Amino acid sequence: MKGPILGWDVGGANLKAARIADVGQCEPTVLERSFPLWHEPHRLPEVLAETAGRLGGAGAMAVTMTAELADCFTTKREGVAFVLDAFRTAFPAIDPWVYGVDGRFRSADAAREQPLEVAAANWMATATLVARSFPDALLLDVGSTTADVIPIVAGRVAARGRTDPDRLRNGELVYTGALRTPVCAIVRSVPLCGRQCRVAAELFAVAADVHLWPGQIAEGDYTCETPDGRGRSRHEAGARLARMVCADREMLGDGDITAIAEHVAQAQVRRIAGGIRQVMRRLGAACPGVAVLAGQGTFLARAAAEEARLGTRDLANDVGFAAARAAPAAAVAYLLAGMADA
Amino acid sequence: MKGPILGWDVGGANLKAARIADVGQCEPTVLERSFPLWHEPHRLPEVLAETAGRLGGAGAMAVTMTAELADCFTTKREGVAFVLDAFRTAFPAIDPWVYGVDGRFRSADAAREQPLEVAAANWMATATLVARSFPDALLLDVGSTTADVIPIVAGRVAARGRTDPDRLRNGELVYTGALRTPVCAIVRSVPLCGRQCRVAAELFAVAADVHLWPGQIAEGDYTCETPDGRGRSRHEAGARLARMVCADREMLGDGDITAIAEHVAQAQVRRIAGGIRQVMRRLGAACPGVAVLAGQGTFLARAAAEEARLGTRDLANDVGFAAARAAPAAAVAYLLAGMADA
Repeated sequence: MKGPILGWDVGGANLKAARIADVGQCEPTVLERSFPLWHEPHRLPEVLAETAGRLGGAGAMAVTMTAELADCFTTKREGVAFVLDAFRTAFPAIDPWVYGVDGRFRSADAAREQPLEVAAANWMATATLVARSFPDALLLDVGSTTADVIPIVAGRVAARGRTDPDRLRNGELVYTGALRTPVCAIVRSVPLCGRQCRVAAELFAVAADVHLWPGQIAEGDYTCETPDGRGRSRHEAGARLARMVCADREMLGDGDITAIAEHVAQAQVRRIAGGIRQVMRRLGAACPGVAVLAGQGTFLARAAAEEARLGTRDLANDVGFAAARAAPAAAVAYLLAGMADA
Repeated sequence: MKGPILGWDVGGANLKAARIADVGQCEPTVLERSFPLWHEPHRLPEVLAETAGRLGGAGAMAVTMTAELADCFTTKREGVAFVLDAFRTAFPAIDPWVYGVDGRFRSADAAREQPLEVAAANWMATATLVARSFPDALLLDVGSTTADVIPIVAGRVAARGRTDPDRLRNGELVYTGALRTPVCAIVRSVPLCGRQCRVAAELFAVAADVHLWPGQIAEGDYTCETPDGRGRSRHEAGARLARMVCADREMLGDGDITAIAEHVAQAQVRRIAGGIRQVMRRLGAACPGVAVLAGQGTFLARAAAEEARLGTRDLANDVGFAAARAAPAAAVAYLLAGMADA
């Protein structure tokens, strides 16, 4: 391994980077930042360079991405090329290694030629690394936006889907997360004064409001933008949740908000558990009985695993809290380090 | 009636105004414009003045609103006051009459004191006017964003709910519409290559894309903003719909997009029909057998009415196409004109 390695997970809304100084380093240094790419895509090179500068230099870089799905790009092909262009601008002296859904690294040029091979491959990176420590497990990585449900059987990643649409169909990708998910995408109705009330189909509140209200996450964990541009206090989150039933805090008390938040959180758990069960059905007797939990939404992953009657292990216990939150970035760094050693 | 009357329906995303020169005028002059208030609330007075200028002067103004729900306001009280302040700034010489859910007009000062009485009262205005021509009917006003299901029995508005939360619970307000509704708030999954595929919980596509794709609406009807800031062509709408399953147009053909769009449109129809059925159940034998259809989403209203086995009448046949689209603005103008006459 020639010098430190920087691993990158370039998402549409978040950027995560992990630096390992040597392959034996158990816990990488990790930086995570909210960066809604579609707002100002042209700033990506600058943000990459700044992030690398804060983590310290690197001799090599490993990249995985989901940013190509952002709607500032017409196609994934365009998105993949854009992200790789940004790396070239930010780090002209380093040719990054790009991780693919086939579990291999390739050059940026090769990645450009087969964009679907490197689009949304971050789950494969995490699962490949996790498989080395947990040869039989269901990896549950619940992030700010999505939940990955990846079976690992006999030391191999046993996912059926490769592309995002395939993974959505198979239950291996459940598009719900701990922060960014709009409440109107989670539930059709919520309890209100003992009856069910339809919700507004508006971006009035997000999952971060739902989980901040009961203290499941802290204000500092609410790293995405707020829907209304106001603050991240419990009071402000409550006002956003009240708006989901077209009400305000002059109409609804704390108990009403709690009932709404609990209902939405439960719906998210059931949604993720639905993906888990679909994967379990497919695997039948081969399905692992233990879930390895990762991501900012580990609390959701745990509840969903328990609902599906799986045992649980926290990835944070093995790689540290920060790396488990930014698992794909840490994973590509370790995987590239391992390649260089071999 | 002293001079022409301007009726206003100030929504959070749209502004509608209707001018009647005399009470006998069958079809008012109507202006409708997309104005997402939360983007630049400070521009409201200027937009009001400009709209009035284009329609021609007025001796009196009648106002109804739903804009108080916009998330630039912490409470409805704040929102109502803001809208009324904007009228005072735009038209210092005219004291507007504000319509309430009790079916009465009041001064702006009185409205400020009881904001919940004038918040979201636009459905009551339309229903009160429609009741004069259709004493037994279910008014279905499907706009860009929401659907109102208002029973009129024996010439009286027989709605159970007054506030938005009450109306959402009773099926009288179904928060789905022809343009602005996010697709992720309508469906959990869509058909893809013969199987169900989960959708992305992102604001990638809206109802306008769904209805533009099959030609149900024209590009000119797509008056709301596009989610990705791109154009309103069929091609661009298709790309947005593809993104709902995390795909792009290099992965999905026209037939795939058609299947997605049809499924989402059907789900909207079922959702509105669900509200209709809830209202019908409550009324039992008293429920009217005919639906009067209004709003930009009249095509959705018609399909939902048919699904609920109701006969249909188009409000446009009575008041003209433009007035039926902007029904509450026209209604408050006529109601105020009638008051002045009485």
